[in-house]
Amino acid sequence: MLLLYHVWLSPFCRKVRLVLGEKKLDFEMKVQKVWERDDSFLALNPTGEVPLLIDEDGTRIAGSQPICEYLDEMYGDASLIGQGAVTRAEVRRLVEWFDRKFHDEVIVNLVDEKIVKRFLGHGEPNSRAIQAGSRNLHTHLSYVEWLVDRRTWLAGEDMSLADLTAAAHLSCVDYLGDVPWDDHPAAKDWYARVKSRPCFRQILADRIPGAPPPPHYADLDF
Amino acid sequence: MLLLYHVWLSPFCRKVRLVLGEKKLDFEMKVQKVWERDDSFLALNPTGEVPLLIDEDGTRIAGSQPICEYLDEMYGDASLIGQGAVTRAEVRRLVEWFDRKFHDEVIVNLVDEKIVKRFLGHGEPNSRAIQAGSRNLHTHLSYVEWLVDRRTWLAGEDMSLADLTAAAHLSCVDYLGDVPWDDHPAAKDWYARVKSRPCFRQILADRIPGAPPPPHYADLDF
Repeated sequence: MLLLYHVWLSPFCRKVRLVLGEKKLDFEMKVQKVWERDDSFLALNPTGEVPLLIDEDGTRIAGSQPICEYLDEMYGDASLIGQGAVTRAEVRRLVEWFDRKFHDEVIVNLVDEKIVKRFLGHGEPNSRAIQAGSRNLHTHLSYVEWLVDRRTWLAGEDMSLADLTAAAHLSCVDYLGDVPWDDHPAAKDWYARVKSRPCFRQILADRIPGAPPPPHYADLDF
Repeated sequence: MLLLYHVWLSPFCRKVRLVLGEKKLDFEMKVQKVWERDDSFLALNPTGEVPLLIDEDGTRIAGSQPICEYLDEMYGDASLIGQGAVTRAEVRRLVEWFDRKFHDEVIVNLVDEKIVKRFLGHGEPNSRAIQAGSRNLHTHLSYVEWLVDRRTWLAGEDMSLADLTAAAHLSCVDYLGDVPWDDHPAAKDWYARVKSRPCFRQILADRIPGAPPPPHYADLDF
């Protein structure tokens, strides 16, 4: 069985979990306290970061995009990155959009401020960061709407790693109850489609001690 | 002919230039002033960022890793990402290492502080940032040495996108004269091997007005 080292509410780890789910792979998860020095983990991954995947034959793959590319090359019939170099470039462009831009503009300002900071005892959330994160979130949801107004899924006619990546990031903000879905009905429709896939069930069952999600979080008809 | 929108001293743009060179593709370059709003460029790439590549048939590819993956799939016989999912994962892991970790720990502290800030009139370099960047650079050079002590090239027995990415980042710091090569002879040997490849010539010829590189920058026998 595959083994995934992860932390809760990491969009990068959630993205890998969704890919493992789409590929119908059985896997175990192990929480790695990346904020504590752990020499045995550093020997597995010198960045000390998660996600880290150990395949059944012992192969170690570090980093969310390398892991997703690896799983896509190794497992399953249909590619989640798509067919043809141009389609694949568009999928990878959107993956980078969410992994970098959305992460830096939204996740850092909302999830890191509200949850990670509290959990690590780094003080109160910065209200200016939260305001900036909320403003940026509207822009990103509008971009999702712009895309799904023109395409069935974010990168084209097929569901792809772009959708899983975007949904992984949004699901972390949704866990906080901070996504203004009612202002972005087309983005909500798209998210409902991703959320209803079997690979998403495990993520909707996540519960962080002391920080329960709002009732709509796991509701497919939110 | 392919067209690359770029800025000078961007490691991400340099990485794409090196791949274009390795693939023996003719290309033109156009400087995009990403710090000025340009609606015609935003229409080409909604992030407003470089690198952006326009292929001969008009296909637009945005983002350094999507561009490199695209070029690797489209052009040339030998893959720069390598053969086999495990090798490819190791190449992509190291690409991420330099594009994220090295960038955030070294490029931001040295290149952005010393050149980008001055160029954009954002004030004097922050001396604490520069000290941190210099310290981090030693750690990264030691990691390069650890790798080439065990392998011919960074990711294995073949020169790969990992080497080109690492060298693209290091070349920006080397343009400032800030790489302590003499403290890291094995890293210097590896860099000399990458630097002597034909794809590197164009980068060694870069000259930024008002900020010339040190004499050793373009010297293959530095």
